[in-house]
Amino acid sequence: MTGPAIILVRPQLAENMGTAARAMLNCGLTDLRIVAPRANPLDERAIAAASGADTLLLGAKVVETTAEAVADLNRVWCTTGRDRYMVKPVDTPRQAASAMRAAEAQGQRCGILFGPERTGLENDDVAIADTVLTVPLNPDYCSLNLAQAVLLVAYEWFQTDAATELPAMTKGAEGPASKEKLLTFFNHLERELDDCGFLRIPDKRPTMVRNLRNMFQRANLTGQEIQTLHGVVHELVTYRHRKGEGK
Amino acid sequence: MTGPAIILVRPQLAENMGTAARAMLNCGLTDLRIVAPRANPLDERAIAAASGADTLLLGAKVVETTAEAVADLNRVWCTTGRDRYMVKPVDTPRQAASAMRAAEAQGQRCGILFGPERTGLENDDVAIADTVLTVPLNPDYCSLNLAQAVLLVAYEWFQTDAATELPAMTKGAEGPASKEKLLTFFNHLERELDDCGFLRIPDKRPTMVRNLRNMFQRANLTGQEIQTLHGVVHELVTYRHRKGEGK
Repeated sequence: MTGPAIILVRPQLAENMGTAARAMLNCGLTDLRIVAPRANPLDERAIAAASGADTLLLGAKVVETTAEAVADLNRVWCTTGRDRYMVKPVDTPRQAASAMRAAEAQGQRCGILFGPERTGLENDDVAIADTVLTVPLNPDYCSLNLAQAVLLVAYEWFQTDAATELPAMTKGAEGPASKEKLLTFFNHLERELDDCGFLRIPDKRPTMVRNLRNMFQRANLTGQEIQTLHGVVHELVTYRHRKGEGK
Repeated sequence: MTGPAIILVRPQLAENMGTAARAMLNCGLTDLRIVAPRANPLDERAIAAASGADTLLLGAKVVETTAEAVADLNRVWCTTGRDRYMVKPVDTPRQAASAMRAAEAQGQRCGILFGPERTGLENDDVAIADTVLTVPLNPDYCSLNLAQAVLLVAYEWFQTDAATELPAMTKGAEGPASKEKLLTFFNHLERELDDCGFLRIPDKRPTMVRNLRNMFQRANLTGQEIQTLHGVVHELVTYRHRKGEGK
């Protein structure tokens, strides 16, 4: 499973081929095809811009026509920001990603056409594609460069892979402490607050205790952090006693 | 509703402040804040790289510390690719976008911290944030530049707006034709295919007709396209007749 082919049609600048390769590899895509490039994909500016993803430039399939580039593919999307007044389904990158995964699961091969920097794809290139791919963006300001367009499309493809999910809740070695540890701390804190008179009004005490507990609950404290808080309360109380002794 | 603030912490290159502004405006974000920039955000390279989004650079709030930059915000995310071994929830850009929309709907203000190009955020910056924001990418090659990271996060925020949805099915002025027009064409085609003997085997005719109809059905033809097909069939038949006359 290599993911969709990224097909750069008549790209103008070597640097942009490099940054497009970089965007691809970030999202696990490696099948780069270039139709009639206007600059050398192995130019040193391309290699530098690829920032370590130059293996994609070295392995790129360079052909003369869009038809050759898509010949072995089953499903082709074309990226365009403007309406071409052709009757063709339109996908967002997310919809396309989902359709590509489904097609790949059936053994079909997919590809996405990206046009030249200044002009975009020609209508003949658009006509070769099954589906138009348009990135929903600010209607008052749409200005993606080539590599950014490749990045958004490749990113959506990568995100549809279940293996890319991150751990949902916590980072670091230790998870939230047991509730027993938390309750022990609550008891310690509230005992000290009773002692010092902070919770002295009986009618208000239950609400105040609940509010305090809620604050600490929301913090998802670890055992180590609860130990620290015990220390904080203990030190504050000790300091107060010391001050009291000094009176 | 202005969306989350984008906070560039100690950015090093003027050009990257410009490309970050450009990425923001593509996704409708305008609240740019810059902490202790290492280059002038109004440098001509920044303005050029902003490619028309320089209003964001002109309006950027430039402050000395991360604390000042987040002071008026209610919820802060920090972008980092590495594990900082801090106990903090982790969001993908998509999860963060959804949480930001919910927070904004409650009148809360959100912001996202992006670190310096070479080193990323310092741990003290991470500690100020509520949540870590990590983009799931190829574990063997993670190499986003500053503007690309801003773009992915801003893109996800923009995509959660219902108003960004594209028309699902067709592009162009005309939608699919009425079924009446389609059936008229089917009848025309099948009559001609009966005449020429293509559908001559009675047992196979129903299946062949259904297969043909299915092919044209899937194309979601417009009225204009159906007119064209009528013409195609008519011309083919006429040519056959002319050839027949010429025998």
